[in-house]
Amino acid sequence: MSGRLAVIGLGPGDARWLTPEAEAALAAADALYGYGPYLDRVPARPGQARHTSDNREEGERAAAALRHAANGAAVAMVSGGDPGVFAMAAAVCAAIEAGPAAWRQLDLVVVPGITAMLAVAARVGAPLGHDFCALSLSDNLKPWQVIEKRLDAAAGAGFVIALYNPVSRARPWQLGAAFDRLARHLPAATPVVFGRAVGRADEHVEVTTLGAAGVVAAELAADMATLVIVGSPETRAVARDGRTPLVYTPRASAGVSA
Amino acid sequence: MSGRLAVIGLGPGDARWLTPEAEAALAAADALYGYGPYLDRVPARPGQARHTSDNREEGERAAAALRHAANGAAVAMVSGGDPGVFAMAAAVCAAIEAGPAAWRQLDLVVVPGITAMLAVAARVGAPLGHDFCALSLSDNLKPWQVIEKRLDAAAGAGFVIALYNPVSRARPWQLGAAFDRLARHLPAATPVVFGRAVGRADEHVEVTTLGAAGVVAAELAADMATLVIVGSPETRAVARDGRTPLVYTPRASAGVSA
Repeated sequence: MSGRLAVIGLGPGDARWLTPEAEAALAAADALYGYGPYLDRVPARPGQARHTSDNREEGERAAAALRHAANGAAVAMVSGGDPGVFAMAAAVCAAIEAGPAAWRQLDLVVVPGITAMLAVAARVGAPLGHDFCALSLSDNLKPWQVIEKRLDAAAGAGFVIALYNPVSRARPWQLGAAFDRLARHLPAATPVVFGRAVGRADEHVEVTTLGAAGVVAAELAADMATLVIVGSPETRAVARDGRTPLVYTPRASAGVSA
Repeated sequence: MSGRLAVIGLGPGDARWLTPEAEAALAAADALYGYGPYLDRVPARPGQARHTSDNREEGERAAAALRHAANGAAVAMVSGGDPGVFAMAAAVCAAIEAGPAAWRQLDLVVVPGITAMLAVAARVGAPLGHDFCALSLSDNLKPWQVIEKRLDAAAGAGFVIALYNPVSRARPWQLGAAFDRLARHLPAATPVVFGRAVGRADEHVEVTTLGAAGVVAAELAADMATLVIVGSPETRAVARDGRTPLVYTPRASAGVSA
């Protein structure tokens, strides 16, 4: 079997974050699969088929791409950010596990990309400079009680927290509930960073505090294109005249010298 | 003041992971600063000065680069992986906070990169496919008790765990102690991924279990170039004939349909 499936991370919106490996994998594909807005970022190439699907059809999209690859084609599945972080690579792996034995023999390549939390962090300094976690706020795929448990554990143990999928039309209250939950563990002055559409023309980055985060989220109309970083008790915001504050988490914990 | 400091992530070893933004920022610099092995990955350019330092001199390296930029130069600080993840961006921010007021007015740009956990994860599937954390095992910069608390919290709450800086010559026992600690929370069959020198000619990736991880770490001579991913109770390893097992963490928690 000569089929090949590349699961490719495009990075956030800016084309300058597309790696040479991803560029080469896109160029080598006979066919592209993906959610429409991600496929729209890939220039058309003659002879290359494009299969667009809705963002709620991940399992079926993965199976379709695997069937196509199993026929001997070089297939590429595109994903925003990094395909392994709350994205298509896990859906492809799950489809392989559930599918025919032949799919396990396909040449599967995952091409990493800049994931949203790294891009947002870069815009403000280094909020992820020490131990951190990444947590999806979507309770479509896990019970809200699991999310609360993870928020408690992460904040209680001093991790910085990157929140993916913070808000959608069907999930309007979860982000506010998460801020309230985190406020049980963290001071109101804890720095919070919002990054919306980072790397795109309408990018907006805002630094605030946990105490004000619920109000700011509403003002910004935080949505699925938004990534939120909540600091740990050690995260610092450094004011700068006329610029966004620098936000960083020191490499050394308090009381330990570098 | 026209000075500029770009803190640039080169990604892991493979040049195909260097983003166009990083490439452009390197090309635009009057002077480069960095740890020797990272600077060695950047081709020499005529007229571009290079300031190499040891990897234990991060604070002084950051201050030197800031002084240079404050004199009006375009300075680049290079970092492996992503500069914001256990790397130079936090050191630069700390130096800015502690330094003269003029440093806050410098044009600081952080250029994100592929961090090691994304590259290692890509090699085996999607172990970071759901909630995860990144934790440095170095107790040079925080007490070991803090690390134990974070291991307990992360494993107990169901996060996948990426361990950075797992072993060094001065820290030979910490990785084994971390596996023992995690075994209090996780089954012995939990998948563990070792990625050493990923993206370099001597790359080695191995999939094992938590029960065998201590022995495998010794066999592989895990070191500072190694990144370890410890699964959650939901992480799955899928055997493939003649290939490394696929390792992935499903997007949906058990009992919740996608």
